[in-house]
Amino acid sequence: MTLSLEEYLASRRAQVDRTLDENLPPPATPPAIIHEAMRYAVLGGGKRIRPILAIAAAEACGAAVEPLLGPCAALELIHTYSLVHDDLPALDNDDLRRGRKTTHVVYGEAIGILVGDALLTEAFSWLSRAGDAKVIAMVAEAIDSKGMIGGQVADLEGGSTLDQLEFIHRNKTAKLITAAALLGGLLANASEKLLTALRRYGEAAGLAFQIVDDLLDQEQSSAELGKTAGKDAAQGKLTYPALMGAAAARKRAEELLKVAVENAGIIGGPVNYLAPIARYICERRS
Amino acid sequence: MTLSLEEYLASRRAQVDRTLDENLPPPATPPAIIHEAMRYAVLGGGKRIRPILAIAAAEACGAAVEPLLGPCAALELIHTYSLVHDDLPALDNDDLRRGRKTTHVVYGEAIGILVGDALLTEAFSWLSRAGDAKVIAMVAEAIDSKGMIGGQVADLEGGSTLDQLEFIHRNKTAKLITAAALLGGLLANASEKLLTALRRYGEAAGLAFQIVDDLLDQEQSSAELGKTAGKDAAQGKLTYPALMGAAAARKRAEELLKVAVENAGIIGGPVNYLAPIARYICERRS
Repeated sequence: MTLSLEEYLASRRAQVDRTLDENLPPPATPPAIIHEAMRYAVLGGGKRIRPILAIAAAEACGAAVEPLLGPCAALELIHTYSLVHDDLPALDNDDLRRGRKTTHVVYGEAIGILVGDALLTEAFSWLSRAGDAKVIAMVAEAIDSKGMIGGQVADLEGGSTLDQLEFIHRNKTAKLITAAALLGGLLANASEKLLTALRRYGEAAGLAFQIVDDLLDQEQSSAELGKTAGKDAAQGKLTYPALMGAAAARKRAEELLKVAVENAGIIGGPVNYLAPIARYICERRS
Repeated sequence: MTLSLEEYLASRRAQVDRTLDENLPPPATPPAIIHEAMRYAVLGGGKRIRPILAIAAAEACGAAVEPLLGPCAALELIHTYSLVHDDLPALDNDDLRRGRKTTHVVYGEAIGILVGDALLTEAFSWLSRAGDAKVIAMVAEAIDSKGMIGGQVADLEGGSTLDQLEFIHRNKTAKLITAAALLGGLLANASEKLLTALRRYGEAAGLAFQIVDDLLDQEQSSAELGKTAGKDAAQGKLTYPALMGAAAARKRAEELLKVAVENAGIIGGPVNYLAPIARYICERRS
């Protein structure tokens, strides 16, 4: 591992950004408005955690990165579609995302809805380039009405118990992060043993990611986060710090980090950034 | 061909309805609201033209029907997702569909958006069961921002010329119908020659379908259609009868029907209902 974590993240992020830019339809493609809006939503920054995780998982399992960039970048399309729809007036009604106006604020609500639809569709197209229907089935299951969308529905409904909170976060956030780890493994033709370790890694890192998100929402400003801060409390939303206190929430994230790091170790591999990425997820400040 | 067209359509429709009912998550699956709403949107009637067309294409190419029902029924999920999102207040703002209240009127706008997302995701899951990534790529291309969604965007933007109208209808309607014909062919491992005939059949039948839709919107009542009639004129939308008169529009549909029937003939096959289905599309009254 010749690159520091920062160098690794920056290098993979640049590859993901280039892949997104080159593979999204050019902005003048008719009808231009939807293609401009898709590019606005996707290319406006973002940490690219999910594609980077998929790439890191594939590398840890011994695969070369370049041919896998399209399918891995598809996860960023899925993540962005979920943000664009979540930000709509009928859902979270948010006007700030990644430090800029949300897509529906710039392009109108109708285009906001259709941009989300188009990004989800485009994602399955990019995933199909891996030539493996199992990949499609795995990702679709992670983000369906029993997965990511189910988590969003449960989040809308609210709740008051730790069980309800875990249902929301496991589905809304952790399932797509788990799918990222598994996607890398499937693209690298990893063994069942490695796929199991990747699944456990993703579930632990994914839940830790959301707990840290809850903590940051409480602790940081909107300028630091690039999205509306303090929103959870303002909307009376259930969060880990609200339910168990910030110290206990931080401790829970650290326990999950330990599970993620253990499973990263099972995977081995000469180029394995999975453990440092899990640490980064838990220690990030935005 | 031992069944009349009416018997064939009724039998295949019953198979599609059963497949949809059995494969959609049970209504009590948590979170129950989204699964109830998905079933409300999908199981509330509909002619099931797209899955039936896929089944008929597969049969015409010599395949057995039963193992292909899941992937073929996925097209109905896609069609329904597009209707649920088109009916939203930010788009067509419609409250009547298939003779019942639209999904967002019953379940609220947030669930309406998420039901559409969930049906599109579920569709790719069902398509993946065919085990062929080429199927996913073909369908995704038909319904992406340059396909069905692009047609919807162009429809929102409006227009005044026949070229603009054809862009809207070819994309918004004909591409998914063409994908239905091609899906049947791909599932039946049809030759390139047959796939070309299926594509031409679908493009002609798909455009004819939309021209007839425009004529029915003008001629029929809401009760007859099960959806809001006269909407095109009320919204000042470009239609074939508005642009060229009802008689010329009817003539154009008949020319397209001829192309569809010719290509159905190229496919041959002992059980080939493609030509009568194309005729049904042009002669239906709702």
